[in-house]
Amino acid sequence: MNDIIKHLEWRYATKEFDTTKVVSEDAFNTILESARLAPSSYGLQPWKFVVVKNPDIRAKLKAAAWNQGQITDASHLVVLCRRSDIDEAYVTSYVAQTAALRSIGVEVLDGYKNMMVGAINGKSKDERATWMAKQVYIALGFMLHTAAQLEVDACPMEGFDAKQFDEILGLEAKGLNSVLVCAIGYRKDTDMMAQAAKSRFSKEEVIEVI
Amino acid sequence: MNDIIKHLEWRYATKEFDTTKVVSEDAFNTILESARLAPSSYGLQPWKFVVVKNPDIRAKLKAAAWNQGQITDASHLVVLCRRSDIDEAYVTSYVAQTAALRSIGVEVLDGYKNMMVGAINGKSKDERATWMAKQVYIALGFMLHTAAQLEVDACPMEGFDAKQFDEILGLEAKGLNSVLVCAIGYRKDTDMMAQAAKSRFSKEEVIEVI
Repeated sequence: MNDIIKHLEWRYATKEFDTTKVVSEDAFNTILESARLAPSSYGLQPWKFVVVKNPDIRAKLKAAAWNQGQITDASHLVVLCRRSDIDEAYVTSYVAQTAALRSIGVEVLDGYKNMMVGAINGKSKDERATWMAKQVYIALGFMLHTAAQLEVDACPMEGFDAKQFDEILGLEAKGLNSVLVCAIGYRKDTDMMAQAAKSRFSKEEVIEVI
Repeated sequence: MNDIIKHLEWRYATKEFDTTKVVSEDAFNTILESARLAPSSYGLQPWKFVVVKNPDIRAKLKAAAWNQGQITDASHLVVLCRRSDIDEAYVTSYVAQTAALRSIGVEVLDGYKNMMVGAINGKSKDERATWMAKQVYIALGFMLHTAAQLEVDACPMEGFDAKQFDEILGLEAKGLNSVLVCAIGYRKDTDMMAQAAKSRFSKEEVIEVI
């Protein structure tokens, strides 16, 4: 088994974090940087990653997440957000940034821009929200994968009251909505799940060759 | 910059694949194994990964994906699917498998099972479909991350006619629906996008600390 797989076998959704262990800023920044570099539909990156350090706010978030200890006990906490909506103005600004970065005229990217605007306008607001939320799951995947390679534990979480999270973090005013939470730290030796065999369907069950 | 980030900087959504280069079975299996090991909500893995080798079928899929060359030109092609639906029977079978794997009685997992069944029954069929599709994006993230670490190129694709894909691959009869495509291979030297600077918002733009 190679190292990548060995690390993915090692990772699990950590339920109990060791509150005495702190993830280095170097490792944490690498995990965050993975999220920033994650791919998204058309490269539009309709997301923001909110790192919650304030312990009072983390305590409030815990209460809005069925009191799951990971929220306050993990070394670092990231709330992965999507944009509340996405429109032509956003695409225009993204295209302008891309053109500047590549030292080309914006008009070179007109076709690309029109395709994106068409795709966005072809969806309802709800469909856009779902589509943006899905992209955030890719970023989560990148964070978890990187954390595993660094032998840093993590717990991805869908189980929280997103509306309450939005309120506590003042996301609405920033044009954002919470989608996922990622608690990052080190497992407690006594975490029962740390010893449990990873439950995955077999290759034969989940892979089909046509 | 560490190696993980260097590889994530290196990757991009490859538009033109070198049709003469084949990804080794070892590397391809590592990428697939990453998908199999990816986390999902409650660990339910509501997915299947269909590897399409048949060139005639790949040609048909290409026609159902706006003739994007990646579908036929990449060394390997994977269609990431979600289950058409998920119900108590599926959860029961997953719990039984987990209990057997961990050598514990199924009753030990009753609370866990009831929580999952409650979550599933609390959603409409459409909501379940969206929820399962989101999990597939995590698996895609794992595949792309692993491919990058192995210096294998990939192109994640949402741009295809999912209904046509379902028909061509006979997914409906298998209780599956196509969600994403991942073309895997090696970039062609002449792929314009291979040289283009990666366009990402800055850390200041996508990360906020509270």
